[in-house]
Amino acid sequence: MRFEKKDILDITSLDTKEITMILDTAQGMKEISERPVKKVPTLRGKTIIFFFQEPSTRTKLSFEIAAKRLSADTVSIAKSSSSIVKGETLIDTAKNLEAMNPDVIVMRHSSSGAAHVISKRVNCSVINAGDGTHAHPSQALLDMMSIREKKGTLKGLNISIVGDISHSRVARSDITGFSKMGAHVTICAPPTMIPKGIEALGCQIAKNMDACVEGADVIMMLRIQRERQGNILFPTEREYASLYGLNPPRVKLAQKDVIVMHPGPMNRGVEIASEVANSDCSMILEQVTNGVALRMALFYIVAGGSRHADSD
Amino acid sequence: MRFEKKDILDITSLDTKEITMILDTAQGMKEISERPVKKVPTLRGKTIIFFFQEPSTRTKLSFEIAAKRLSADTVSIAKSSSSIVKGETLIDTAKNLEAMNPDVIVMRHSSSGAAHVISKRVNCSVINAGDGTHAHPSQALLDMMSIREKKGTLKGLNISIVGDISHSRVARSDITGFSKMGAHVTICAPPTMIPKGIEALGCQIAKNMDACVEGADVIMMLRIQRERQGNILFPTEREYASLYGLNPPRVKLAQKDVIVMHPGPMNRGVEIASEVANSDCSMILEQVTNGVALRMALFYIVAGGSRHADSD
Amino acid sequence: MRFEKKDILDITSLDTKEITMILDTAQGMKEISERPVKKVPTLRGKTIIFFFQEPSTRTKLSFEIAAKRLSADTVSIAKSSSSIVKGETLIDTAKNLEAMNPDVIVMRHSSSGAAHVISKRVNCSVINAGDGTHAHPSQALLDMMSIREKKGTLKGLNISIVGDISHSRVARSDITGFSKMGAHVTICAPPTMIPKGIEALGCQIAKNMDACVEGADVIMMLRIQRERQGNILFPTEREYASLYGLNPPRVKLAQKDVIVMHPGPMNRGVEIASEVANSDCSMILEQVTNGVALRMALFYIVAGGSRHADSD
Repeated sequence: MRFEKKDILDITSLDTKEITMILDTAQGMKEISERPVKKVPTLRGKTIIFFFQEPSTRTKLSFEIAAKRLSADTVSIAKSSSSIVKGETLIDTAKNLEAMNPDVIVMRHSSSGAAHVISKRVNCSVINAGDGTHAHPSQALLDMMSIREKKGTLKGLNISIVGDISHSRVARSDITGFSKMGAHVTICAPPTMIPKGIEALGCQIAKNMDACVEGADVIMMLRIQRERQGNILFPTEREYASLYGLNPPRVKLAQKDVIVMHPGPMNRGVEIASEVANSDCSMILEQVTNGVALRMALFYIVAGGSRHADSD
Repeated sequence: MRFEKKDILDITSLDTKEITMILDTAQGMKEISERPVKKVPTLRGKTIIFFFQEPSTRTKLSFEIAAKRLSADTVSIAKSSSSIVKGETLIDTAKNLEAMNPDVIVMRHSSSGAAHVISKRVNCSVINAGDGTHAHPSQALLDMMSIREKKGTLKGLNISIVGDISHSRVARSDITGFSKMGAHVTICAPPTMIPKGIEALGCQIAKNMDACVEGADVIMMLRIQRERQGNILFPTEREYASLYGLNPPRVKLAQKDVIVMHPGPMNRGVEIASEVANSDCSMILEQVTNGVALRMALFYIVAGGSRHADSD
Repeated sequence: MRFEKKDILDITSLDTKEITMILDTAQGMKEISERPVKKVPTLRGKTIIFFFQEPSTRTKLSFEIAAKRLSADTVSIAKSSSSIVKGETLIDTAKNLEAMNPDVIVMRHSSSGAAHVISKRVNCSVINAGDGTHAHPSQALLDMMSIREKKGTLKGLNISIVGDISHSRVARSDITGFSKMGAHVTICAPPTMIPKGIEALGCQIAKNMDACVEGADVIMMLRIQRERQGNILFPTEREYASLYGLNPPRVKLAQKDVIVMHPGPMNRGVEIASEVANSDCSMILEQVTNGVALRMALFYIVAGGSRHADSD
């Protein structure tokens, strides 16, 4: 099978075959990071530009390590140094980047839809590393990879997602992807954090946290994003932890072999208790490891896939 | 021919043979960025330090991509992290960089002449990536490359430069280079933006914009650098656009095959109308593409040229 | 001999055999930076993460150049972009970094002991690039390398260290290392800048600057770290220079072949007179050159040493 798309913009635009192909490729990439020499020449001579207009630690780091393990050349534009502050339009900035002949632009932007706009204007590949509250496809794909690795399949699984759905592009991409791959997704959050019409993405809303996690095969906890909330959407962190935090008694309500996930960074003691984060059912660090492999797969697929097959 | 200089500091210090050699080399480099594998081993094992004491997006990115496509190792010192904030002199900082055995220091600084001062104190090559309002030689060279590519030669061409000449190191380097290569340069700007004695660089001053662009083979529009003007040098942007902006009727006054250039980032609707920027006569994005090739040529010439010829 | 430790955390935990091995390795690495092609494939496919939570120019640059000359892949997390600002614990951040399979984390942190804490929690190697006022082992090792290069040995040398001992992790690491290698260390500073019990590290306190430098084989001047002093610890810079600055008459009190050192960045005219910094007895820039070689040795020893010997 060939991947025919130029860009990775969101989960909505990927069909189940494409998702499966990405996950299979990522699983193959994972082993490279376990070798003494963690590097393959696959993308030698490819140029990848990181265009991050929002701060990021782990996502950018994960993409960068992925690119370097494939031998690509990477360059970054930081927000502060960007011409955007000089009054240039986003599209002009992107056209300028394109004129330097990159193979891939990895883009994070505070406006939902920014990556889509750019992808239509440039010939190189665009990977959306998070746009506003819209999508974060590489995170959802690494979550799917992590679940599939542990459970064999997503089909038929009960997956609970708990937390600030409104402000979370991870939640949107996860719900879309999990339900597309056949899982039953149940969400739970304070009423102020559930956007209207969210069920249309493929999920149901639990009436409370206990109901949400009961019988779950997978529990995905979302981070309380203090820095993204314009105003306070819940009374206190202590109350939040009590009503919506994942603690050992609640884990017991789920399946015995439940796995607990979190996209990080965690607020220990708020949305997740330390005992849970540190327990054997936690896949939180495995998600990070899989993130590198998944991003290697994305780079390989958009920038190296078919050419590699033809010429090597 | 051999390039005998250690540094690239300004256009004034380059003779026409050296400029021609640089442009020829850059033209040869251009093709590398169009290959599937955009990388040659020419500067493998060379260390290039980026020492940018002023913010920059495209210039730094262009230099970095150029360095990586030649397989050089690159490291950067950001302004904020520099020891200069700890009270060290600029020369001590440069001597410290030199002590780490770099082959090239690419330097941007807010003080005119900074690169010259450093170049005399270090044994490695220094490339001036912009110093105060003095010089920006790589920009002028890529502009010459772009003109020559389209017109075959600069000799005898009528080139108009319009905008904030006072605050523009690009303008100074362009005027010097274009006139050195035999072009007739005419400039136009609000009187507050024309420095005294600028004609000595090799240009005449047009009495108004229409007169400036009439019969032009090349029109170079300069950016209104809001961030660099201490005070307001023109009443309103609307008035500026009307008196000094390049719009379709003014393009019609020029030669039929006129090319329009801009060093970027553009203020659309101020110094240049969107219709002009997007039209077929615009070389603005080609300038960006040529910028990578030109900077590859500079690195090759100062750090790889003769050694490469001797030993490879 | 094999280096059996996973980490380089401080000088205290290294024995004289290990220090000698590091210095010998560094001396061998030095020549690589003098070649036309300054690069060896030793650490190809290794991933080194720079985790600097305090600003740094030369130390980070030196580590980065060292890593690249050994062909390692490098990635950086800047403080501002770190998840720590989002409320994540330091240990969680480190565990996340570890999950991306790095070989080495180079860490600088404002808290004394931070690198020790992390090193116990991760399987990869940790190199302490400075933690609070505690330790800066790579600086002390490059100082020892520089002295040994010039004097043949540290054994029996009289080494004077002058300046802000209290706030200097360099001073602590230097005193520990020099005395461990058999030198006699004498320190001198304003009383407010001498921490209680410092003699236990292996030094004596001189009653004034003249007494301190008299007969010295090596004088190490410390930087007055204005940015690290919560309050003023001496009246004026002029007075400091007069009482504790190194000037030509004081150099004359030392041995004829005395060498003068400074970890940089220097405050010329404060702790060191320009004539002294520029004189032939100054090893200040040689320290910088040796810093790259020493850090190449550290990377080689923790990430490439034995594996290299086994498989290449």
